[in-house]
Amino acid sequence: MEKITDRLSSLRDAMKKNGVSATIISGTDPHGSEYLPDHWKERLWISNFNGTAGTVVVTLEKAALWTDSRYFIQAEDQLEGTTFELMKMKMEGTPSVNEWLISELKEGEVVGLNPQMFSHFAHIQNYNELTFNKIGVKSVDLIEEAWQNRPTLPTNPFFLYETKFAGKSASEKLVEVRHEMKKNNTNVYILSALDEIAWLFNIRGNDVNYNPLTISYALVDAEKAILFIDETKVTDETKSALAQEGISIQSYLDIYTYLNNLTESDHVLFDGNKTNQALYEAISSTSTINLVASPVTGLKAIKNEIELDGFRKAMVKDGVALTKFFIWLEENINNNINEVTVDEKLKFFRAEQENFKGASFGTICGYADHGAMNHYSATPESAYTLGTDKMLLIDSGAQFLEGTTDITRTLILGTPTSQQKTDYTLVLKGMINLSEIIFPANTRGSQLDAFARKALWDNGFNYGHGTGHGVGHFLCVHEGPQSIRAEENLTTLKPGMVLSNEPGLYRDGEYGIRIENLIVVQPALSTQFGDFYKFETITISPIDKTLIDVTILTDEEITWLNNYHQFVFDQLNSFLNEKENLWLKEKCAPISK
Amino acid sequence: MEKITDRLSSLRDAMKKNGVSATIISGTDPHGSEYLPDHWKERLWISNFNGTAGTVVVTLEKAALWTDSRYFIQAEDQLEGTTFELMKMKMEGTPSVNEWLISELKEGEVVGLNPQMFSHFAHIQNYNELTFNKIGVKSVDLIEEAWQNRPTLPTNPFFLYETKFAGKSASEKLVEVRHEMKKNNTNVYILSALDEIAWLFNIRGNDVNYNPLTISYALVDAEKAILFIDETKVTDETKSALAQEGISIQSYLDIYTYLNNLTESDHVLFDGNKTNQALYEAISSTSTINLVASPVTGLKAIKNEIELDGFRKAMVKDGVALTKFFIWLEENINNNINEVTVDEKLKFFRAEQENFKGASFGTICGYADHGAMNHYSATPESAYTLGTDKMLLIDSGAQFLEGTTDITRTLILGTPTSQQKTDYTLVLKGMINLSEIIFPANTRGSQLDAFARKALWDNGFNYGHGTGHGVGHFLCVHEGPQSIRAEENLTTLKPGMVLSNEPGLYRDGEYGIRIENLIVVQPALSTQFGDFYKFETITISPIDKTLIDVTILTDEEITWLNNYHQFVFDQLNSFLNEKENLWLKEKCAPISK
Repeated sequence: MEKITDRLSSLRDAMKKNGVSATIISGTDPHGSEYLPDHWKERLWISNFNGTAGTVVVTLEKAALWTDSRYFIQAEDQLEGTTFELMKMKMEGTPSVNEWLISELKEGEVVGLNPQMFSHFAHIQNYNELTFNKIGVKSVDLIEEAWQNRPTLPTNPFFLYETKFAGKSASEKLVEVRHEMKKNNTNVYILSALDEIAWLFNIRGNDVNYNPLTISYALVDAEKAILFIDETKVTDETKSALAQEGISIQSYLDIYTYLNNLTESDHVLFDGNKTNQALYEAISSTSTINLVASPVTGLKAIKNEIELDGFRKAMVKDGVALTKFFIWLEENINNNINEVTVDEKLKFFRAEQENFKGASFGTICGYADHGAMNHYSATPESAYTLGTDKMLLIDSGAQFLEGTTDITRTLILGTPTSQQKTDYTLVLKGMINLSEIIFPANTRGSQLDAFARKALWDNGFNYGHGTGHGVGHFLCVHEGPQSIRAEENLTTLKPGMVLSNEPGLYRDGEYGIRIENLIVVQPALSTQFGDFYKFETITISPIDKTLIDVTILTDEEITWLNNYHQFVFDQLNSFLNEKENLWLKEKCAPISK
Repeated sequence: MEKITDRLSSLRDAMKKNGVSATIISGTDPHGSEYLPDHWKERLWISNFNGTAGTVVVTLEKAALWTDSRYFIQAEDQLEGTTFELMKMKMEGTPSVNEWLISELKEGEVVGLNPQMFSHFAHIQNYNELTFNKIGVKSVDLIEEAWQNRPTLPTNPFFLYETKFAGKSASEKLVEVRHEMKKNNTNVYILSALDEIAWLFNIRGNDVNYNPLTISYALVDAEKAILFIDETKVTDETKSALAQEGISIQSYLDIYTYLNNLTESDHVLFDGNKTNQALYEAISSTSTINLVASPVTGLKAIKNEIELDGFRKAMVKDGVALTKFFIWLEENINNNINEVTVDEKLKFFRAEQENFKGASFGTICGYADHGAMNHYSATPESAYTLGTDKMLLIDSGAQFLEGTTDITRTLILGTPTSQQKTDYTLVLKGMINLSEIIFPANTRGSQLDAFARKALWDNGFNYGHGTGHGVGHFLCVHEGPQSIRAEENLTTLKPGMVLSNEPGLYRDGEYGIRIENLIVVQPALSTQFGDFYKFETITISPIDKTLIDVTILTDEEITWLNNYHQFVFDQLNSFLNEKENLWLKEKCAPISK
């Protein structure tokens, strides 16, 4: 890996030139994004590691990568031949990034950090831990100096997202946002999360994979709203349309000078978890900063009726595409299909649907033991050719103008073993039990997570990921603040929130099982004991019955499954041809003991 | 309420003499106790309110009491005729204590606080909120000046708690404690919670109701352990026995001078939630303070095998006493029994058992609509005479040398309505479902709480209290850190922890239902997915079958109930006479659909 050696040495040259002995590369971007444009793939550039989670530290002598168990094997491959040391996170004896830095550096040495690449709170933590141990911290962008022929930021024009899809105009949303600002005693609000800006201003873009976002900052005050964006991305149409909503345009980096010029009458709403340290440092010292959660996070999470109808329409399209895909799969299973061609075919069938805007994340297609590797992503080199004797896990999703989808189905085209059927049915029980739960207002996802696990727990089984993540509306497939997981999250589940329901079971070296639908929090009933909510399941695609051991399902669970399959057939049949309908009818036929 | 008027004016005299305009009376004591000796019942003395939760604030003009919904009615009664204003906590528009003080006082005025009566963290919060708003804070004990003929502190001698009950000697516990101190880089550990001192030194006392505690402070360093206690409570026997465990005695208040004399080599382990501000202020400024959770809290929560065997023995005694009580109740139901006589009779039958040391809390006996009032405590004036047509809720517990009990049974001696049977059976389903759960290591109580509620939630019902609290071993019936409740508690459930399992349902004006057993966390199984735990039910008394609607129980739930009743009969029958056994056999006879 000669190129890595060269890159490390040019980075170390920049470090020496700036008098710093170490640097941390966070692997994110100035907006805290999940998917990055090439320009900001700093961790990939310096280390060759392309997982979604990892932190690189480079000193004048050493280089190390911190990542979690999902990526140990991949990281070992990708770091091979480099001088990078792999630091296995959450493993006995692995130091934290700062513990390691403190042990490597001498008192008085300085760590160079790019304040654009750390949230304010992340920076504060680094600053406190390092300076407490007599290690200096300096704000500097070393990668910019070290990276020759660095790709430029994308310049694709962004586009307007029509109110007929968004359900609310930007000006309506701005009224709500200003109301929240007042509640927090603030009159200036800085937005840097790209999905929050896209939601608030009803704009979308194509700057990164999977997330329809455009790189920008935004600022809202009592009178105006400003979109800070590369002006080459603005057309006369978008400019005037935004103007009508009370939104003006300024150049992307002008937000820094704008924040410099704030005055003592400005009380700034700043989300320390989402907004980067460089913006924090840019704010005029004469103004006041109020560190509170970005109000758009909470407003965006609660979908309006038009957004929810859009989701339902998107699910029908997804269901039609998946029906055609599964038929194709069955018919061609013996024609050398592999994990990569599955991905291409899925995309092909989804692309036939109107308003398709691409995949909502990288398809996870795992045959046999690949299914047991969470976040496995097939490459031409790694891809298995599919057969009928092993289980196949497919987790995929689409972006339609009407909404975002995310669905996992696990199936077998041959005859399952009894262990496969038991495992699959236990996962299904969990998915059904969470789907059916009725719960009071003010309940947190962590109080419900175990209902998706109980059937597994009863047998000493479990899965190592959360049960549900929030989902954006033609936005990010992973969206906060709502979640359903064991880890605490103080967000309570409110009507209009969209989440995934995806329990699983993974047997290393054998197979992986995951069954995932998307669900919407809906009002259920009101009694003298308060308001109660339920989940509406909106994903529309049959659940493989070949793998079900009906004897371990309760009558209630069988009824749920039969009703769900009836719903699937009713929703899809009018969009399918005769042959497809026959196939679907059989997949949706009721089961019984 | 003339006496309250006089007391307020003598308190205000003390306030003027000390130049303070207001004071807060927290309602606790220097040890953060739940049950107080008369000497420290300051809130009762000044306000006449005797609930278990409430804060009094007195200014030169006004007086107010903050309490929660459990006590609104009681507080209105007890404050009647006084100038006290009732502040209903958690109600729309009710200010917090400090918000109210800030609105009542002028800039520069001073609030007098007794630092003994606030934990360090509680004091910090008051200090920050008040001084931020230009209100001064002064440490002063105004009640001591104002309270004429104040009762003195109890001087009952404490007694030694034998290792045959405790399972571990004090010196063994001190080894573990010093190990924890080292882990926290501390060499001096201050204990002020009375149950932690009683556990660590294997001593018990009779200074307050229900909790077998003796008023004292304790300090442990690398070499010695000191019990700070009123010397009149020490006998030659206890003194020499403690000396053998490496524990010396000093006078109760000498801890203040001791802390004054600490040096820079002392690194003090101080629990800011449990230890009072006066002790914090007493610590020599030359030493270092490390604010961490008191390690004894966690050690004490995990019961050893001898403690658990003791619990099981105590449960048998409790079960025998309750059997005799319920037979007496059935035979005398038409002889003008009321809610108070029930309490006396329970105590009578429990006192017949060996090593009985009193009730573990004030019996809650609620007939008919009294059962719907949480924390109802019958008085001769309020007590209903019992009949056979309404439901009866009895929540009671005992202190035996072997362990502490806490049990709730709800019954009816006549014929229940179908609504009563449905409600009762839904509560029972929740209690059974939590009893049967198997869960992985590192699970928090908040992840399991909903299993006790699901059957109620399905019908739009719920209860407003936690499902389970920790229970001490011949100590406090309410013990942290473990709990099973909706509210987050980061403590994970570990083998050896004892908790209650007590779902309920309360219909205002009609009746209350609660079914409570004590449970112990036990290992269940270990698999490739990790270690799994289960609950062992240790409470031994039949569950009223008259109120069960068997048609809404699953076969699994019926099996659990029949097995539980078989266990109850097997555990108790050898301690009962023939007549009692016949009664128990019928109560424990299996049910079926």
